[in-house]
Amino acid sequence: MSDPVATLVGLLDLEPIEVNIFRGTQPEEERQRTFGGLVAGQALVAAARTVDDDRAVHSLHAYFLRPGDPLVPILYEVDRIRDGRSFTTRRVVAIQHGRAIFHMSASFHTHEDGFEHADPMPDVPGPETLPTRAERYAAAGLDDPGGMSALDIRYITADPLNRKGPQPPNQQVWFHAPGPLADDQVLHTVLLTYASDMSLLDATTLPHGRDGELMMASLDHAMWFHGNFRADEWLLYDQHTPAASGGRGLATGRVFTHDGRLIASVVQEGLIRPINRE
Amino acid sequence: MSDPVATLVGLLDLEPIEVNIFRGTQPEEERQRTFGGLVAGQALVAAARTVDDDRAVHSLHAYFLRPGDPLVPILYEVDRIRDGRSFTTRRVVAIQHGRAIFHMSASFHTHEDGFEHADPMPDVPGPETLPTRAERYAAAGLDDPGGMSALDIRYITADPLNRKGPQPPNQQVWFHAPGPLADDQVLHTVLLTYASDMSLLDATTLPHGRDGELMMASLDHAMWFHGNFRADEWLLYDQHTPAASGGRGLATGRVFTHDGRLIASVVQEGLIRPINRE
Repeated sequence: MSDPVATLVGLLDLEPIEVNIFRGTQPEEERQRTFGGLVAGQALVAAARTVDDDRAVHSLHAYFLRPGDPLVPILYEVDRIRDGRSFTTRRVVAIQHGRAIFHMSASFHTHEDGFEHADPMPDVPGPETLPTRAERYAAAGLDDPGGMSALDIRYITADPLNRKGPQPPNQQVWFHAPGPLADDQVLHTVLLTYASDMSLLDATTLPHGRDGELMMASLDHAMWFHGNFRADEWLLYDQHTPAASGGRGLATGRVFTHDGRLIASVVQEGLIRPINRE
Repeated sequence: MSDPVATLVGLLDLEPIEVNIFRGTQPEEERQRTFGGLVAGQALVAAARTVDDDRAVHSLHAYFLRPGDPLVPILYEVDRIRDGRSFTTRRVVAIQHGRAIFHMSASFHTHEDGFEHADPMPDVPGPETLPTRAERYAAAGLDDPGGMSALDIRYITADPLNRKGPQPPNQQVWFHAPGPLADDQVLHTVLLTYASDMSLLDATTLPHGRDGELMMASLDHAMWFHGNFRADEWLLYDQHTPAASGGRGLATGRVFTHDGRLIASVVQEGLIRPINRE
């Protein structure tokens, strides 16, 4: 039996094709299109492979350009746009069938000391008190699709299977990769990048009390990293939707460790288009 | 006597050099380096010049790569990475002396109707009740450097000249270009992009009660636009700093019209390095 976490870690490894060119594979499962978090995670791996390990990624900005084809590999081409004394910046384009499906810029910084402050963690119940996926499906009277997921996600606010009607513009989930993972901060950061594309865009529909009849697609993804963490330990993903207009919704996220340290900020905009208007 | 708003509007116009290539000039004033908001604004103009006017910019993501030289023009090269049915995406690199000083990605979207929601505007005093720049300098016992500024900025929270000691992690200012400006939403959006690089990074230092002995530089800049507005009418810039660590500080901003509509979200990270450590 395959271990889903090990499988995901394997997908987040890339085959080096040339200096600055890498190739990523996709999971052997039926999907209509590539999961955006996988492309973002693989693109960050490609960028990090071209950067000295005396500097760590502190931010990334990405656009999803075209739906990914889940049946073919993805090529990542890295542009070394800046190699500075303290900062290194990379641009990565993900290519399938000769066309860009995604591009990312990421910045890496040497270690410096300086000012320290952070938003406090909201007061929430711990993950062990919250229902598992199997329990959520059971509560909704639905069959659990089965199989193990690489990530264990626990909803603090009402989960998508069991909520009805308009909700406040906030969503909170705990998640972790039920590891254990190697002591490699790049791997933990890449796993967080992968995970941060899950559930976030859904937050943009909360005030409207419907999420089943929409064409939704991530448009962009931006992250800022504030400190070290482990993705095999529980992380709190505290989400808010500040605005929706023009067929788009914006969501922001803050990621805290179990002991309350803010370790990442996330922003994503997505298309939220009622299906009946297509 | 020159009109500072007209001068700024002129700087935000670009000379077309070739299809996809534009050149921007800089103000005739002494500066140590180019103002980041000018580069961001000019880059957005370059991108918009290559996009059909049936679609408007809804987001941009940029990195500042090297300090700009204020004495020479800036070349903007546009990469038309996607021309889609509903979305158009552009990448722009700003070049001086043969090197990239800045790059931006921006996405444009046709008009669609869809879900509408927005954070409410905070309750703040109106701009006309707040001190002008001349009054702030006088209150601090300092000589006003004189000259007219293209933007009228009024601090709601304590202004940098007159605050002492640690502050809450929030800053609020009203600003506008004391126009009038033409009815061109691209121009208003570009002016907001220019203005959004002012005062925001300063918010990251508020909890630490000092801002005079720091080397500060914008690292990136991201914006999302939620609706139309005029930059010659008062806009509220509501800022918060969620985190600082590793020599960097993060600031978020929300921009509201005078009548309370949320029209833009902004995120910027910057280097905040104590001078005595250089």
